[in-house]
Amino acid sequence: MTSPLQQTIELLKAHFGERLSVADAVRDHHGHDMSRQPTRLPDAVVFAESEDDVQRVVASCFEHGVPVTPFAAGSSMEGHTIPLRGGISLDVSRMNRIVAVNSEDFDAVVEAGVTRKQLNTHLRDMGLFFPVDPGADASLGGMASTRASGTTAVRYGTMRENVLALRVVTPTGAVIATGRRVKKSSTGYDLTKLFVGAEGTLGVITEVTVRLQPIPETIASAICTFETMRGAVEAVVATMQSGIPVARIEFLDEVAVDAANAHSNLGLKRAPTLFLEFHGSPRWVEEQSQSVAAIAADFGGSDFAWSTLPEDRERLWKARHETIYANQSLRPGCKTYTTDVCVPISRLAEAVLAARADVDQSFLTAKIIGHVGDGNFHVGYLIKPEIVEELAEAERLAERLYARAMEMGGTFSGEHGIGITKLPYLRREHGDAVDVMNAIKAALDPAGIMNPGKLGQVG
Amino acid sequence: MTSPLQQTIELLKAHFGERLSVADAVRDHHGHDMSRQPTRLPDAVVFAESEDDVQRVVASCFEHGVPVTPFAAGSSMEGHTIPLRGGISLDVSRMNRIVAVNSEDFDAVVEAGVTRKQLNTHLRDMGLFFPVDPGADASLGGMASTRASGTTAVRYGTMRENVLALRVVTPTGAVIATGRRVKKSSTGYDLTKLFVGAEGTLGVITEVTVRLQPIPETIASAICTFETMRGAVEAVVATMQSGIPVARIEFLDEVAVDAANAHSNLGLKRAPTLFLEFHGSPRWVEEQSQSVAAIAADFGGSDFAWSTLPEDRERLWKARHETIYANQSLRPGCKTYTTDVCVPISRLAEAVLAARADVDQSFLTAKIIGHVGDGNFHVGYLIKPEIVEELAEAERLAERLYARAMEMGGTFSGEHGIGITKLPYLRREHGDAVDVMNAIKAALDPAGIMNPGKLGQVG
Repeated sequence: MTSPLQQTIELLKAHFGERLSVADAVRDHHGHDMSRQPTRLPDAVVFAESEDDVQRVVASCFEHGVPVTPFAAGSSMEGHTIPLRGGISLDVSRMNRIVAVNSEDFDAVVEAGVTRKQLNTHLRDMGLFFPVDPGADASLGGMASTRASGTTAVRYGTMRENVLALRVVTPTGAVIATGRRVKKSSTGYDLTKLFVGAEGTLGVITEVTVRLQPIPETIASAICTFETMRGAVEAVVATMQSGIPVARIEFLDEVAVDAANAHSNLGLKRAPTLFLEFHGSPRWVEEQSQSVAAIAADFGGSDFAWSTLPEDRERLWKARHETIYANQSLRPGCKTYTTDVCVPISRLAEAVLAARADVDQSFLTAKIIGHVGDGNFHVGYLIKPEIVEELAEAERLAERLYARAMEMGGTFSGEHGIGITKLPYLRREHGDAVDVMNAIKAALDPAGIMNPGKLGQVG
Repeated sequence: MTSPLQQTIELLKAHFGERLSVADAVRDHHGHDMSRQPTRLPDAVVFAESEDDVQRVVASCFEHGVPVTPFAAGSSMEGHTIPLRGGISLDVSRMNRIVAVNSEDFDAVVEAGVTRKQLNTHLRDMGLFFPVDPGADASLGGMASTRASGTTAVRYGTMRENVLALRVVTPTGAVIATGRRVKKSSTGYDLTKLFVGAEGTLGVITEVTVRLQPIPETIASAICTFETMRGAVEAVVATMQSGIPVARIEFLDEVAVDAANAHSNLGLKRAPTLFLEFHGSPRWVEEQSQSVAAIAADFGGSDFAWSTLPEDRERLWKARHETIYANQSLRPGCKTYTTDVCVPISRLAEAVLAARADVDQSFLTAKIIGHVGDGNFHVGYLIKPEIVEELAEAERLAERLYARAMEMGGTFSGEHGIGITKLPYLRREHGDAVDVMNAIKAALDPAGIMNPGKLGQVG
């Protein structure tokens, strides 16, 4: 007798042929992500090339009660795409068509598998760009599902603000369009925002309409070093409070500067440092950077070096993004245990300094980097995960970090989402609101097949 | 034998005493709003003074299956607060405490009955303001529920972008907190955004955390008149496409200018006109207005008059907001049949001109005003509603307007919401996504008591 799972795979195989794979290597690729979560293999992987494909897979899984977990770039940090209960890994990375760029309306319609770099390459000659930049070359569908953000959110917002509309295959196999290609609407429940951040537990996003920005007339980058960590963070707080619309304002502590220097040859002074970017007209960019330089000086900032050369800027942000991979230079053989808290800006200095103090009292090393303009920062504990004591210590420190952030009115995840790793924190942050989340999940996914075992079912 | 309704009223009366009223005048006040919808009386009105009060009313109504409709300022344009199925009108206007202003974080926590003017008066000395400005002195709870916006949304966003967190009594009487006082979070379904725009059908908002803005160093207002309506609208489109962050950019057609002149003695030239506002440093405001003046000139704009005097500015925006009441001067005894569409900016000129052409071919008069920077505009047909032919003609024209907006990828309501009036359009715009909305409603409000007969149940 064949199981419902086997039946589903056979049915789908008959339709998808080679686009359904049960090969070990393929299943393994879809069984892990960038997180520390153990691999869990799907029973089969289907490569969807269209919304119809997605609809067919989901409808079939719904009929037979088989789990479906969406997958694209696999760049999740918290285990979102790991198929905890097996079943089908639904890979949408081949759905990579740019459907439309509406340059007059500053929006683009793309299939879910389009990556942000692909979109920006496509847009470059049109004088437009898509601003959300989490570092990784993630898919737009994945970024929407995780409510991703990154270095530019301080100016342009996160995926929450930048997704205008979606097409979604619901867990019962219906196809819906949420939202319209307009800047405002007050017609009905905001389903777009419900699916943004739902981590693939309420349906499969097939198409994303995103907001675009004009490439600024002038872009200037700047580096500023500080005597103390407190000074650097307080300069950020003062900058934000002054209302200057910085496009990026990133903090790196000494350890992160070491990493950047070693990995990218930046030759920076070993000190708490801010990386900044300003967008606007030449005069306006100059005014912004002068204002920030003055603020920085008040907080012990010096060497405020700014440049409008693209090559300086690219080197800077490449180094910033690579700090996460720049571990070998700090401690050969180690990995980064990454965290991701966000606090009200008024509590930022306190939160960052307390995190640093925790690390200073521990036997572990850690680097701190942050999208500090939003109150969001990452403490990366450098550990050898196979050493039980190191993993346990990182977990202990992370627990302190998360608890402190929530106590300050902050959140245990600013931009990485929950995935598997952070499910234990959900109810601690949201209390009985989790019951409302679970009720929504049960209503939209009565068979419990969409990315099961995660958000909406556990917590 | 007492009915469940009578039982509920008696139980609540025992607790609330004089804060529960069945007086005709009180019920009548809670039985209509600013819309054309016929009055429908609640069976009783309860004046809540705290979240506990709200919780008690909702829990009791849930137990007995009695309808509850939230009410505050009563400034809805579409019948949101009319208790279609009777029951309890739950008035939160006395919940008007400003709980906290976190000036360093640019946010404020207020009870749902606080009005926007009350909040701004409170904030003035702190150098902060709450930007969302729909004209009416609406309550923050009501503005959140309608996903309101208005003249400043082009720069600062709508309630969607400006509500950070909520406290809500759910339809089963649970109290939940959605969201945190942080700029970013990726932890769980975005319940805040789900309740924003839910029109009181998923629960009663008791507390709203909103984003604040620093009062700009310089505010300049400007008026510019155009030879043609097309020129005015195309100047707006070009301004938006240039990326200049205008704080307000409002369009008035000749009829609206007539109304403003007659009602507020503005002495404006009778021509398609833009009202503008710029926020920023003195130099930056000057740069913005020079750029817009140059764009306007390209499209036949002249008399670009700008001023940084507060009195000029106040007169301007008061006149703009009062255009809606300025009917008597245009046609004594008439009322405005208001509409509210929003289209992609690339279709704005076409949409506005087609609306004008419709009116020109009709026996009705209409004024067109709009938050055109967002693609949002209102055609106000001037009718005597007691004349059947006039009402029918306004409905015919509105239907054409809505159909055209949806065809262009726009929406039938940019900021006024659905209420009762626009329920017939919901499925036309959202298709099967309405099934998802209805499933959410059924899951969160199993007894169907929250503002019943509207969004989530009909459409």
